[in-house]
Amino acid sequence: MTTDIHFDTVAVIGVGLIGGSLAMVMRQRGLAARIVGVGRGQANLDAALRLGVVDSATRDLAEGVRDADLVVVATPVLKIADTVRRAAPSLKPGCIVTDAGSVKAAIIDEIEPVMPEGVSFVPGHPIAGTENSGVEAAFPALYQDRVCILTPTERTDRAAVEAVRRLWEEAGSRVVIMDPALHDRVLAAVSHLPHMIAYTLVNTVADLEDSGTDALSFSAGGFKDFTRIASSSPEMWADICALNRDRIVEMIGLFQDRLAELKGHIEKADVDALNVDFSRAKMVRDSLLAKNGE
Amino acid sequence: MTTDIHFDTVAVIGVGLIGGSLAMVMRQRGLAARIVGVGRGQANLDAALRLGVVDSATRDLAEGVRDADLVVVATPVLKIADTVRRAAPSLKPGCIVTDAGSVKAAIIDEIEPVMPEGVSFVPGHPIAGTENSGVEAAFPALYQDRVCILTPTERTDRAAVEAVRRLWEEAGSRVVIMDPALHDRVLAAVSHLPHMIAYTLVNTVADLEDSGTDALSFSAGGFKDFTRIASSSPEMWADICALNRDRIVEMIGLFQDRLAELKGHIEKADVDALNVDFSRAKMVRDSLLAKNGE
Repeated sequence: MTTDIHFDTVAVIGVGLIGGSLAMVMRQRGLAARIVGVGRGQANLDAALRLGVVDSATRDLAEGVRDADLVVVATPVLKIADTVRRAAPSLKPGCIVTDAGSVKAAIIDEIEPVMPEGVSFVPGHPIAGTENSGVEAAFPALYQDRVCILTPTERTDRAAVEAVRRLWEEAGSRVVIMDPALHDRVLAAVSHLPHMIAYTLVNTVADLEDSGTDALSFSAGGFKDFTRIASSSPEMWADICALNRDRIVEMIGLFQDRLAELKGHIEKADVDALNVDFSRAKMVRDSLLAKNGE
Repeated sequence: MTTDIHFDTVAVIGVGLIGGSLAMVMRQRGLAARIVGVGRGQANLDAALRLGVVDSATRDLAEGVRDADLVVVATPVLKIADTVRRAAPSLKPGCIVTDAGSVKAAIIDEIEPVMPEGVSFVPGHPIAGTENSGVEAAFPALYQDRVCILTPTERTDRAAVEAVRRLWEEAGSRVVIMDPALHDRVLAAVSHLPHMIAYTLVNTVADLEDSGTDALSFSAGGFKDFTRIASSSPEMWADICALNRDRIVEMIGLFQDRLAELKGHIEKADVDALNVDFSRAKMVRDSLLAKNGE
């Protein structure tokens, strides 16, 4: 199957790390004749123009998407649905809209009903990122050797899915097609839950500091890894919690059950049971390294 | 104050990463005329001799410590008290015994009553380590720019504390004197709790895998940091749990309270409260980086 993925005009809404890097890929690979950057901050748009990431830039959403054959929505996750809703009346027939949000079901539920006839929405989530943000942090290799999950529904146009799949493959990613609800559950487990745990651990130690016990001065390797995760954007994570609430609550519940069980083993100083728990976790790491071919 | 820290004979019990690295420091800095390695595994002792980490080696504990002016106990933490108890009848008057165990109160409670007259025990904990073990992994810079905590009690000889303090300072560490119970509480917070959390998180995701949900394939940065911690030695961590049970249970309890609170905020999709929680954790990281001068 050869899907043409050369787009005449591409609009990238939110020209930050995620959107900017994809724009750079499209330029590098000659996938777009013209890339329009759409955003709310003039300074970032100016930087995107200066860096050559986009050909033109506008703060006017309707104007920005009017001629687009492909619209990439790379705004903060809580803004995606509203952005698409506001852009919808200006989209031309045949246009493909895709997004890069880290939560899928809630976004799809809001977007699909407002999609105009003849416009396709392909929900996507590239699992990539760095600790930096803004277009200055963008680079075309961001998606190299990463996974991008697409979560089409029964309403999603198959040819549009193929085009978006090929786009991410051109960026160097492995594309996985997944049910939106499963995506949200899997990401709740391997991404959202770890962040909730890291935030909670750091705040637990902060409580000790506040009550006069200096523990932070003695933090060794283990704790520092957690603080790195816990320094992720508070706003972004609050939004993710709101959008993927039920799945994150489910995963926290499973974690709570496991932790209560472990605490019971420790209370009884049941070294055998502890050994079983800890050895199992070690095996998971080994299997993970094997899966990733490391 | 000038404490003489040149020892005629030093016995290192357990010539692995921790004991071997300290032996290398003593040799490099000319702090010991003769270093005796004591251990249970002949292969590791042979390696220590071959690498020049020790001058002689023996599997006979009594013989190994008989002439020692300084005995460094660097066995697995659960073996420390028993090792000292068995060595005690062979220690000569004036000998200083120190250890490198990551739990202090439980060890001190067992060791102090069996210390012979004229022999000093200085409880210690160098906060250092790598993912490797055994004498082949030892290197003298292991303790450079790290913290070593000493936890003397009212029964500990002050001159012996000074000698051990100077030894760790020669190794490049900052030495902090701390109450044993406080040490165990602080380490429970910044080291033991993070490991329990990491093990539990990895096992929670392993449960999902077992029930048919492949989540591991989609693990991104956050989760991988946890699996690294969770690949630490199961035996060692089971022992630490047994020895520092009450403090670890206390810290898990504080964490559980915080996590239940966070879960409540997520259930209510209380974005403002989530922002407060997450922002606080981010601030802790900033203060930690400032403390460490990074």
